[in-house]
Amino acid sequence: MVMYNIIDKKKKGGELTREETEYFINGYVNGGIPDYQVSALLMAIYYKGMSDTELLNLTDIMAKSGDMADLSGIDGIKVDKHSTGGVGDKTTIAVAPIVAACGGKVAKMSGRGLGFTGGTIDKLESIPGFKTSIPKEKFFDIVNNAGLSVIGQSGEIAPADKKLYALRDVTATVDSIPLIAASIMSKKLAAGSDKIVLDVTTGTGAFMKNIDDAITLAQKMVVIGEGAGRNTVAYITNMDVPLGIATGNNIEVIEAIETLKGNGPDDFTEICRNFSAAMLNLAGKGSIEECALMADQAIKNNSALDKLAEMTRMQGGDDRYIYDTSLFDKAPYSYQWISSSDMYITQMDTEQCGKTAVMLGAGREVKDSRIDFTAGIKFYKKTGDYVKTGDIIAELYSSNKEKLDTASRYIKNAYKTGSSRPEKQKTIIAYITKDKVIKY
Amino acid sequence: MVMYNIIDKKKKGGELTREETEYFINGYVNGGIPDYQVSALLMAIYYKGMSDTELLNLTDIMAKSGDMADLSGIDGIKVDKHSTGGVGDKTTIAVAPIVAACGGKVAKMSGRGLGFTGGTIDKLESIPGFKTSIPKEKFFDIVNNAGLSVIGQSGEIAPADKKLYALRDVTATVDSIPLIAASIMSKKLAAGSDKIVLDVTTGTGAFMKNIDDAITLAQKMVVIGEGAGRNTVAYITNMDVPLGIATGNNIEVIEAIETLKGNGPDDFTEICRNFSAAMLNLAGKGSIEECALMADQAIKNNSALDKLAEMTRMQGGDDRYIYDTSLFDKAPYSYQWISSSDMYITQMDTEQCGKTAVMLGAGREVKDSRIDFTAGIKFYKKTGDYVKTGDIIAELYSSNKEKLDTASRYIKNAYKTGSSRPEKQKTIIAYITKDKVIKY
Repeated sequence: MVMYNIIDKKKKGGELTREETEYFINGYVNGGIPDYQVSALLMAIYYKGMSDTELLNLTDIMAKSGDMADLSGIDGIKVDKHSTGGVGDKTTIAVAPIVAACGGKVAKMSGRGLGFTGGTIDKLESIPGFKTSIPKEKFFDIVNNAGLSVIGQSGEIAPADKKLYALRDVTATVDSIPLIAASIMSKKLAAGSDKIVLDVTTGTGAFMKNIDDAITLAQKMVVIGEGAGRNTVAYITNMDVPLGIATGNNIEVIEAIETLKGNGPDDFTEICRNFSAAMLNLAGKGSIEECALMADQAIKNNSALDKLAEMTRMQGGDDRYIYDTSLFDKAPYSYQWISSSDMYITQMDTEQCGKTAVMLGAGREVKDSRIDFTAGIKFYKKTGDYVKTGDIIAELYSSNKEKLDTASRYIKNAYKTGSSRPEKQKTIIAYITKDKVIKY
Repeated sequence: MVMYNIIDKKKKGGELTREETEYFINGYVNGGIPDYQVSALLMAIYYKGMSDTELLNLTDIMAKSGDMADLSGIDGIKVDKHSTGGVGDKTTIAVAPIVAACGGKVAKMSGRGLGFTGGTIDKLESIPGFKTSIPKEKFFDIVNNAGLSVIGQSGEIAPADKKLYALRDVTATVDSIPLIAASIMSKKLAAGSDKIVLDVTTGTGAFMKNIDDAITLAQKMVVIGEGAGRNTVAYITNMDVPLGIATGNNIEVIEAIETLKGNGPDDFTEICRNFSAAMLNLAGKGSIEECALMADQAIKNNSALDKLAEMTRMQGGDDRYIYDTSLFDKAPYSYQWISSSDMYITQMDTEQCGKTAVMLGAGREVKDSRIDFTAGIKFYKKTGDYVKTGDIIAELYSSNKEKLDTASRYIKNAYKTGSSRPEKQKTIIAYITKDKVIKY
């Protein structure tokens, strides 16, 4: 087999065989095929796309390029959840406990913050003592006993994806839907869960800027999941506004806790209810509707909150924080942006919101920056809201006064205002299974 | 400036500015921009093409990446001629003397054989003593005195092209018309002539397999030449059959000499007459028709033959060979392919013909193979010809008996025969100037 012919075939719109895909992926990972041939192929894929069969092969081969987590040591059906990233996305921290409280099993590997989007692992580490790096046996043990555990990635998950992603990142081939789908799903397949609920975000704070692309991506990922024998469904959710009110680390954990107490913001509560229901449904706990009622009950009877506390304790964290969020550190500096007129919020640049949170210390500006767990933003008013003179639009928090001052100016550029009422924002835009697309 | 943005812009179909093109070409040549970014850009160019402005900039920048020949030491208008390659293409050896005999100036740098196509430099070196590597001053001197000199490439001509071509060759991005046009024309611009006649071959023995692509390529090259201030015209010629009868080295020189004596094969004589006329016309010697008559005259009065002898002598060669071709070495082994039936030649795979000639020793199978100047093939019968039992279809020559035996079997696969008369082959298919395409 010759790499030249593989590039040439794809360039002309041909379908790569499994053997050809194995040849180029394995050759690239082991260094036998050079970057410059792979980048030419990636650009050809950008233009010519991939068939479902090609995509399944590519994803499977990428997943198998590294460690494949074997979760058979955990009893029952393991359900995973993955978001394509957003601002204020603390969903795992609320959903995993709800699912566990209803009898599901969540054995989840999460990531750290990337660019302007936060990461579940960073957020969980804002709970004092919480360890996200624990031995596999203990991870299995916690899931078997508590029903949930969330840890950082361990082992070498899909090294082919890591290498390909780094190349795509410098050759303008990131925005190829099949390549995005293969990248995400290769890691999900390697992570070992039986069922997968995907959250494909769309809007100004998401990688997918428009809904049609988001739907296409979701469909491709569902095809891959199902083709690999893992039942998969996907939600398309709105990232034209940050999710919930809080964006940061410990303030997001507090918001997740408040949501488990039934006091969460409407949009975030809706997401948690739907995702929990979909995960429980995949785990065979009942219909979507029945599972949604179970999720409501788990909030009402505090069992979900107890699950979060149980996981926290078993992963070395101080579970008093879960029951008394006033224990969390507070940022020494804060700034309230107060409205000086009556107006509607007509638009938010959510990426800008996320970048402002990073600027405050909530994310990493360079690879080894230390995160300020108290830093972040509360978006009290979001797109569609009417604001009166004197209302607090947003509140910013930081341990660094200078950064707070800069961010306080910066955040105002992320908002557009006007005198006419903008269209109502949906939180969930669509639900996608292998058979159908249901638009909300 | 950032290479990523340049790739992304072209990927989306944008037009690169001169600064962007300079950034990537110069960065690539000096090593600052890696192969993998350039190959992604080349693939994007393959799909998105280039505007005339982009193409002019690219070619100019590639030409200027190395030495730009300064021919101002030669009096008069220097006219160049370039072929995109073919089998049996000895045109320069006949045309340059005709043009010089009519008062034109040809200061030409030619190439060696590449793949299945022969090279003028190799052919000229089959004349005993002929030197193709001579000092610049002597080169100028010969052209000033004799009106013509043909030498090998000296100096560093368009190193950007060399580096880009090597990358295209392994990333399936060779067959991009703008990239081919820029590659050829960057070398022509660097070679310094004032006027350029291009021969774009098309057919089974050419890089351009179909006429439309050949016309598009020719038009792009004419645009580049004219845009760079060098009057340029192009012929599209038929490479569905080898040109003339002889393919090899000294047998092609002999055929060129015979043509200068008025005894050449029809197709080759037609090419020489037209190209000479176009070159003389560009040099301001008269209308195309007038120049064609001048070319006829230069053959009739032996002045063109004398010019070839003069150049040969001035470049160290033995000019007795020009007047008495029986002096040339003959291959010790030959094979006559004799027809065993009555039939038409309906098709020839000209690339296969070229490869068979290489196999016989006329070209290089590996980079440092030594050429057998006597090796080659005479194609007595070509597509469209009727062959009777006992006619010689082709004759093969080699210094190596074993190679001759293999090639004798191989050549038969290059021919298709049949009982019905095939369509007549044209030699010249079209003539292209900046304003018009004239189809023959």
